[in-house]
Amino acid sequence: MKACERVRERSLKGKIMFVEDAVKLITDGMTVACSGFTPAGYPKALPQALAHKAKKGQKVKLTVITGASTGDELDGELARGKIIKKRYPYQTNNDCRAGINSGEIDFCDIHLSHLPQFIKYGYLGNIDVAVVEAVAITEDGGIVPSTSVGATNVFIQKAEKVIVEINLAQPAELEGIHDIYNVGDPPFREPIPLRKVSDRIGLPYIPCPKDKIAAIVLSQKKDSTNKVADIDKDARLIAGHIMDFLEFEIKKGRLPKNLLPLQSGVGSVANAVLANFKESNFENLQIYSEVLQDAVLDLIDAGKVSFASGTSFTISPSKLDHFYRNLNTYKRRAILRPQEISNNPEVIRRLGVIAMNTAIEVDIYGNVNSTHIAGSGMMNGIGGSGDFARNAALSIFTTKSVAKNGEISSIVPMVSHHDHTEHDVHVVVTEQGLADLRGLSPKERARQIINKCAHPDFKDQLWDYYREASFFSRYKHTPHLLNKVFEWHENFLKYGRMRPKVG
Amino acid sequence: MKACERVRERSLKGKIMFVEDAVKLITDGMTVACSGFTPAGYPKALPQALAHKAKKGQKVKLTVITGASTGDELDGELARGKIIKKRYPYQTNNDCRAGINSGEIDFCDIHLSHLPQFIKYGYLGNIDVAVVEAVAITEDGGIVPSTSVGATNVFIQKAEKVIVEINLAQPAELEGIHDIYNVGDPPFREPIPLRKVSDRIGLPYIPCPKDKIAAIVLSQKKDSTNKVADIDKDARLIAGHIMDFLEFEIKKGRLPKNLLPLQSGVGSVANAVLANFKESNFENLQIYSEVLQDAVLDLIDAGKVSFASGTSFTISPSKLDHFYRNLNTYKRRAILRPQEISNNPEVIRRLGVIAMNTAIEVDIYGNVNSTHIAGSGMMNGIGGSGDFARNAALSIFTTKSVAKNGEISSIVPMVSHHDHTEHDVHVVVTEQGLADLRGLSPKERARQIINKCAHPDFKDQLWDYYREASFFSRYKHTPHLLNKVFEWHENFLKYGRMRPKVG
Repeated sequence: MKACERVRERSLKGKIMFVEDAVKLITDGMTVACSGFTPAGYPKALPQALAHKAKKGQKVKLTVITGASTGDELDGELARGKIIKKRYPYQTNNDCRAGINSGEIDFCDIHLSHLPQFIKYGYLGNIDVAVVEAVAITEDGGIVPSTSVGATNVFIQKAEKVIVEINLAQPAELEGIHDIYNVGDPPFREPIPLRKVSDRIGLPYIPCPKDKIAAIVLSQKKDSTNKVADIDKDARLIAGHIMDFLEFEIKKGRLPKNLLPLQSGVGSVANAVLANFKESNFENLQIYSEVLQDAVLDLIDAGKVSFASGTSFTISPSKLDHFYRNLNTYKRRAILRPQEISNNPEVIRRLGVIAMNTAIEVDIYGNVNSTHIAGSGMMNGIGGSGDFARNAALSIFTTKSVAKNGEISSIVPMVSHHDHTEHDVHVVVTEQGLADLRGLSPKERARQIINKCAHPDFKDQLWDYYREASFFSRYKHTPHLLNKVFEWHENFLKYGRMRPKVG
Repeated sequence: MKACERVRERSLKGKIMFVEDAVKLITDGMTVACSGFTPAGYPKALPQALAHKAKKGQKVKLTVITGASTGDELDGELARGKIIKKRYPYQTNNDCRAGINSGEIDFCDIHLSHLPQFIKYGYLGNIDVAVVEAVAITEDGGIVPSTSVGATNVFIQKAEKVIVEINLAQPAELEGIHDIYNVGDPPFREPIPLRKVSDRIGLPYIPCPKDKIAAIVLSQKKDSTNKVADIDKDARLIAGHIMDFLEFEIKKGRLPKNLLPLQSGVGSVANAVLANFKESNFENLQIYSEVLQDAVLDLIDAGKVSFASGTSFTISPSKLDHFYRNLNTYKRRAILRPQEISNNPEVIRRLGVIAMNTAIEVDIYGNVNSTHIAGSGMMNGIGGSGDFARNAALSIFTTKSVAKNGEISSIVPMVSHHDHTEHDVHVVVTEQGLADLRGLSPKERARQIINKCAHPDFKDQLWDYYREASFFSRYKHTPHLLNKVFEWHENFLKYGRMRPKVG
């Protein structure tokens, strides 16, 4: 049987059991840590069995920790089953989000590089059970993850018990793509010996003491990844502005010809920006990012990217067969690392990454909100954007200048929630243009951002605010009128649009 | 002559000149980078000569870059002389601050670990002249800094010309306390080989090509450091809460017995917290910080601190003689590094620093404002607080719960400017108590902060805001009422107090 071949450590074969039995290991009040980073490499069978248990009336309220977001089989099922009491550190699921914003789920949003060490330091309490998807267990009892590593290595290290979900729908050939390095804890932490994006510094599997493995269950379901959105005109314009800027930086001698390693956030604009490199003159590019999406495969195929490092492969359904068929090629050109390494400030700063992340809104002084709607509603979470933006050699934020059919301006007097402060935002790009904020004072930044990035429909209003604030503000360093600063957001909450009158 | 002994490279002795001649090298429109980090190790003669020039009617408008703040001979003189057009990256001087808040000086506030690499990457343009205080020039032409390193190594590396100010009032025996390591630039950056606080990884001087040194001038004036404020009752209470907390963390096994390397911000509360360790049971402590103040000397003297690493020694006038007399002892127990190393995320995260920084205000969800008054007025700048808070194993922020005779609450519904977001603030301490925010959701944080940290005079008002926001906010993740969120700050701007009526 295929499943038996995947569990190569003989003594562990006896731990293979039905998911209905394994699920009994998880009881009310526990903290459960699951593999998964984006809808990639997360357990599918166990969470559904948990949801089934809850549906049958058993009380199961859990603290759920993952590497980052997961698929609907986990966050969706558990949220709908009212199983999640508390959730760390990131999510993107509609039902989970609804639970967070209704006040039902306590959500603690954490920098993704912080999560593994918070667990190791004991800041999030004990982990009762780790549930991890794997493609195999090696002869030595090492666990081979599937399409993501995330924080799975740390979950396995710190959990009391481990449930392994061997997913037969994930190809066994993924083995060899992972590079598991243990960062260690202070005061005995050593320098991370990663000098180049392609450096292999660890093991191809996650070590795990055999007696920690309490159960092995089988699943056979692909990652529930999403279709990649078509590249629209605005995304193409944003990508174009970035290309022009990077070429200018090379001309000025501020960037090498093949740039520096690229990081790109998740989403359609991010994917469009990356896809654009295919048509560019850049050669021999490298990627040092979290999530490797379709565009990365295209760039490797096109010979544009020589190596890509990430912590997960999130490949859309239409591209998945191609990915699987060419796995051996991609294994020579790509690597999956723990998020403790992919998102580590030490490595990001050393490599001098060019970070490209997405904003919900940006204010005239260059602060970025990437998590909240109108200051209160959680969208997804900060994810790894802070790890990259703070430590990048160049930190770029992109957003379309308007949302909701033009009723909402993404450029506002003050962001309603701050995730990335003025200090960590070097460049802001909308389809309207690009504002280079490096070395500018707040007032200089305001003029750049309004001029270059704001949508024409909101430009006059932004100038009005800025001029009025500059005149009436008692202090002229960062002029603001605190009684008017959120008027636009208040309009949005009241009327669904930022302008007081229909334009 | 003493001065000649200090310039040991023979061919450079001819470059010694009067400051009135050296100052001619600096002309209108230039970018001038000066040594200095806190009022320590900054040039004194040259800036005063510049101010003199301006007073005589010559137009000199400059961009001024330093490591961090400096003394009045630099920032004060230049601000009063209307010489500063633009200022990077930090300042603490009254006249400079006034110029920034009147709109006269363009100030760009930068994380102190970012400054050196921004200069090397060319983000702040060319540096025309570096003016650096030194205690000596070695036989090889190496420049030996005085009481601070800061970004002086990078200024010397990137400036077109260097003016060295040999300060005869700074003891020649400072030589040997510095450790100058060159971080290099991506894509060729190597791991920083610093594993322990006491590791020496570089040179005791800053290398400089001889022909770059355009002038050597003499000065004989001590650093204008300030008297350390007496430890008041509130500072003592804050320090006590921190001690109890650290002991609890050790008991829980989350910290080793001798803790982890300590970082402490500048100021009287910070100094009080550090001073408190003298009476504690902790032994064999280490300090990995920016600024080494009086308390560090006391802790070394008391045998409590085995080693201290910083980028400047800011010793108050009353302690200075003691420091000088015992320099050889302190040289075995302390080291001064470039701020590119002292504040480097790589090293801070590796060592697992316990960061203790000061807030101006903290909001109920754990965001920290450490720079702005009422959202618009610049106080000093973010300094190194972000470098430490983001990368620390434990990030503590302290503030007294009220200011201005109790008229201002330091705990507010929303901070009027965000420097450190909820993600980077683990613990908040006021004289009222300590809120441990690790792993908490926004609403859990609010309850902790109001309960533990707010002043009794403002507690009811904070609860009112929180309850009203929780009830009326459309989204319940981070409840806010955007139309009321800055009411307290508006009261402050209108009436000088946060409460609408006199209590």
